[in-house]
Amino acid sequence: MSLVRAFNISMSVDGFVAGPDQSIDHPLGLGGEALHEWVFPPGGVSGTDAEFAARRERGVGATIMGRNMFGPIRGGWGEGDWRGWWGEDPPFHHPTFVLTHHPQEPIEMAGGTTFHFVTDGIESALARAHDAAGEADVAIGGGASTLRQYLRAGLVDDLHVVVVPILLRHGEPLFADLGDALADYRIAEHVATDRVSHVRLVHSRTVE
Amino acid sequence: MSLVRAFNISMSVDGFVAGPDQSIDHPLGLGGEALHEWVFPPGGVSGTDAEFAARRERGVGATIMGRNMFGPIRGGWGEGDWRGWWGEDPPFHHPTFVLTHHPQEPIEMAGGTTFHFVTDGIESALARAHDAAGEADVAIGGGASTLRQYLRAGLVDDLHVVVVPILLRHGEPLFADLGDALADYRIAEHVATDRVSHVRLVHSRTVE
Repeated sequence: MSLVRAFNISMSVDGFVAGPDQSIDHPLGLGGEALHEWVFPPGGVSGTDAEFAARRERGVGATIMGRNMFGPIRGGWGEGDWRGWWGEDPPFHHPTFVLTHHPQEPIEMAGGTTFHFVTDGIESALARAHDAAGEADVAIGGGASTLRQYLRAGLVDDLHVVVVPILLRHGEPLFADLGDALADYRIAEHVATDRVSHVRLVHSRTVE
Repeated sequence: MSLVRAFNISMSVDGFVAGPDQSIDHPLGLGGEALHEWVFPPGGVSGTDAEFAARRERGVGATIMGRNMFGPIRGGWGEGDWRGWWGEDPPFHHPTFVLTHHPQEPIEMAGGTTFHFVTDGIESALARAHDAAGEADVAIGGGASTLRQYLRAGLVDDLHVVVVPILLRHGEPLFADLGDALADYRIAEHVATDRVSHVRLVHSRTVE
């Protein structure tokens, strides 16, 4: 069964998944890069951390992201020459749906990634992503606001949170404004390593 | 040097250190008991978790707590026959200062615990606790609101947070309304076990 998953959602101990003041120099907000150092430690990631980090590579056929994850541009797309943070060969390698209020033609990148721009809401984006993924899973890439919208709507089957021992103090919280959406989730997995704690939340309807 | 410490502050993955609707039946709020199961697992606590759990027993000469941690009574003390949640021999064994707006005579318990009621604020309570503790440390027992007040005022030297893989969804957050107080803290220790992650925040002025 095709599931909706979010992988490697790295959260500071004080609850933030991105720092404040995202910009072209700070795609993850001020201080936000430290959230992902567990994936890129000196000497390379290994063991349990590596196993978790690699899960996003397996069985995912489409990704959805918010426009802030796609780029630093706000409002209209202007000249339309922004092609994402990731260079010409982004790490998705499948159709990738960007939520926006501003229509834009699809952008085909190298390596199988095509960015599609969806202007009619999160459910429409999910339907298109499921179509594109077929039997494979759909990943919610982020950022925080997009993920919270899908959580609030009860549309995420599997959420992998990585609790990172840093303090950000400001930024984008993960667990905020979710109403009672989390009442439908259980902790399905908890594995701690020297660097972080991996916690996986699974929706009660979800058969793994 | 005498330090101000908070021990075993157990926080759900979604950031709460107590559940909602504290009452005489639910001293830690609805669902809040699950925060402390790591201290009382079947078979008893052991290893790293036991070592952390026991730190509060060592070198502490006074405790400060909010009135909600002392009891479920709100407003005035009424008949004054409430003597805390812990029975006749509370686990503090030293002078214990309860923050309240309502004066009350000290209550002497068995085992060395005397509850003193402080009506003139957190700094006064801390001064009295330091006096009582002498060379020993002062513990901020909780609850969340009291701890946040001391953090906001920059008065906590050492905060031991235990991230517990449960979801509470509602209740008392730890990291909220702290302004920039956390800018003065560093992560001094991070140790994960099968059950929880221990994270220790230490103030930048603090010499351990």
